[in-house]
Amino acid sequence: MRYCIGVDVGGTTIKFGLFREDGTLVKKWEIPTRTEGKKEKLYSDMAASIREETAKEGLTLAELAGVGVGIPGPVRVNGYIEALVNLGVYGLNLNEELPAYLDGIRVRAVNDANAAALGEMWQGGGKAFDSIALLTLGTGLGCGIIERGRLVAGSFGMGGELGHIIMEPGEQEACNCGGHGCLEQYASATGIARVAARLLASCSEDSVLRGQQNITAKDVFDAAKAGDELAQQAAAKSMDYLGRAMSYVSHITDPACFVIGGGVSRAGEYLLRLVQEKYASYIHIQEPQAQIRLATLGNDAGIYGAARLILE
Amino acid sequence: MRYCIGVDVGGTTIKFGLFREDGTLVKKWEIPTRTEGKKEKLYSDMAASIREETAKEGLTLAELAGVGVGIPGPVRVNGYIEALVNLGVYGLNLNEELPAYLDGIRVRAVNDANAAALGEMWQGGGKAFDSIALLTLGTGLGCGIIERGRLVAGSFGMGGELGHIIMEPGEQEACNCGGHGCLEQYASATGIARVAARLLASCSEDSVLRGQQNITAKDVFDAAKAGDELAQQAAAKSMDYLGRAMSYVSHITDPACFVIGGGVSRAGEYLLRLVQEKYASYIHIQEPQAQIRLATLGNDAGIYGAARLILE
Repeated sequence: MRYCIGVDVGGTTIKFGLFREDGTLVKKWEIPTRTEGKKEKLYSDMAASIREETAKEGLTLAELAGVGVGIPGPVRVNGYIEALVNLGVYGLNLNEELPAYLDGIRVRAVNDANAAALGEMWQGGGKAFDSIALLTLGTGLGCGIIERGRLVAGSFGMGGELGHIIMEPGEQEACNCGGHGCLEQYASATGIARVAARLLASCSEDSVLRGQQNITAKDVFDAAKAGDELAQQAAAKSMDYLGRAMSYVSHITDPACFVIGGGVSRAGEYLLRLVQEKYASYIHIQEPQAQIRLATLGNDAGIYGAARLILE
Repeated sequence: MRYCIGVDVGGTTIKFGLFREDGTLVKKWEIPTRTEGKKEKLYSDMAASIREETAKEGLTLAELAGVGVGIPGPVRVNGYIEALVNLGVYGLNLNEELPAYLDGIRVRAVNDANAAALGEMWQGGGKAFDSIALLTLGTGLGCGIIERGRLVAGSFGMGGELGHIIMEPGEQEACNCGGHGCLEQYASATGIARVAARLLASCSEDSVLRGQQNITAKDVFDAAKAGDELAQQAAAKSMDYLGRAMSYVSHITDPACFVIGGGVSRAGEYLLRLVQEKYASYIHIQEPQAQIRLATLGNDAGIYGAARLILE
C-alpha cells in the first residue's frame, strides 16, 4: 500500500492530509501560514511538518509516493507560479524547488480550486464520474473542471476561472477583479446577498428580509424555504445566473456531473432543485444530461485532491 | 514513413485524404454521400473508395496506420453515434463496425468540428500551439476545442458546442435548435446578416446596405471596411457576441490560441482586429494572452484532423 500527502495552502493555515492510495485519510493536521515574504520559509515550514507527522506514523519520506500541493493562485503548465498575492511570495515553482527540502521526493502543485475538484471526484460528491465541474459558492465563486479524468488547467492558469465570466455586460457595479457583471457578483454567497439587497431596494414588497442588517446568502435561502416570496425571487435570480453559467460549461467541456460546494451548498435540496430547473432551461441541442450533486468533503476537498494528483 | 487516411463525411460528399505521418497530404479525393438509409451502404462505399485509391498509390491497407473519420454529429466516448440526421442513418459505431470492411485496420470517429480543430492545430492556423479553440463561422457556428493536446469531447458529445450557448436570454426569435439567443444567431454568417438587417430596420441611418436584397455577412464586412458606419456597427455588435463567447472559453479551457475559420474569416485582418478588441474587453483577472489567428486549411481542415487523430 502506497501513501501520499495532500497539502492545501491557504492565507492563514496550511492543511495537510496523509492518505493511503485507496483514498483513506490516515490523518490530517494543520499549521499556521508564515512566509515572512520568502518562499523558502514556506517550503521549510511545510517540509518540517511533513517530516514530523509522517515519522509519527512510522513512515519515512521514501515510503511516500509524493506530495501534492493546492495553491491559491494560477499554476502554469510547467509548474511556475508567478505570485501568491495573499501570501506575499512571488516566482515559485514547487515542483522543482520543494523536493530539495524533502529528500527529492515528487512534488506537484495545482491551483486550489482544481485540487478541490479532483478531491470531490475522487472521494466526494462526484465519485463515480470522470468528468465533473466543481462550483464552490463561498465569499467568491471557485470552479475546477475535470474532463475525462484530466484537469482542465489551461495554457495560462485560467482554466475553470468561471467566477469571472461576464454574465451581465450592462452591470454598473464593479467586481473585485475590475470587471462588470461577473458571475461571482450574482451567485457567490456575497453575490446572492447582494441580489437580495438590490431586489429589496427596488420594490416595497413585504419580506422577512426587509429591515434586516447584513443579509447573508443563508438568510435568503432560509427565508425562501419558509415561503418568503421576495427571497424566493432573489434565490431564483441568483441561481438563474449560475444555471446559465453551468450551461456554458456543458456546451464547452460537457461534464457528466456538476458538484456544488461552499457554504451556500448547505441550502441543500432546495438549491439543487432550483439550479437544476434553471440549468435545464438553457440547454436545447439535446436533453440536459449532467447530474447536479452536493459536495461532501467540505474544507477537506483540497487535501484529498492534492493527494489524488500524486496518485494519477 | 507511416501513412493514414482522414475522412470527412458530409451531407452531400465524403472527402478523403491520404497523409504521411509528417502531415504531408499525398492526395485527396471525394465521392458522393449515399446511404439509402443504411449505415452498411455508407461503410461499403467508404471502404471501396479507400481500397481503390490506396491501391493506386501502391499501398496496401496493412501499410496504413488507420482511418480517422469526421462525422456530422456527436460521438460518444465509446465511439457510439446515435444519429447522423442529415444522412438518415442511426445507431452507428464506426470504431467497431468499419474495420470489418477494411481488413480490420484501426478506425476512429470524431465529431467533424472537433476534427477540423485538430487539423488546424496540426497543419493550419493553430500550428505551434497545443491548446486551441477553432471557431468556424459559416451558415452555423462550429467549434472544436483542444486543451494541452487533447480534444475536449465531453461526456455526452456536447464538448465545444459553443454555437448554442445562450448569449441573450431575452431574445424573441428562436434559433434552429429551439433556444432563444444562441451565439449562432448573432455571430455565424447567417447571424451577422441578421444583426445587420435588424439594425437597418431599427433606424433610418443611411447605409450602402439599405435596400439591398439578401444581405450577406460578406456584404456587411465589405461595407464596414469601406467606411459604412451602420455596417461597422453591425459587425462590431456581432463580433462583440463572439468576443464575449471566446472570453467564456478562456475562463473555462483557457486556450493559447483561437483560430477563426469558415466563410466569414475571409474578412481577414479587419475581423481579427475587431474580435481581438471585443475579446480583450471581457477579460479582467489577467492580461488577455490568447492569440487570435485565421484558419488556413479551409475545407480540408476536417480530413487533416481526422488523419491526425489516428497518429495521436
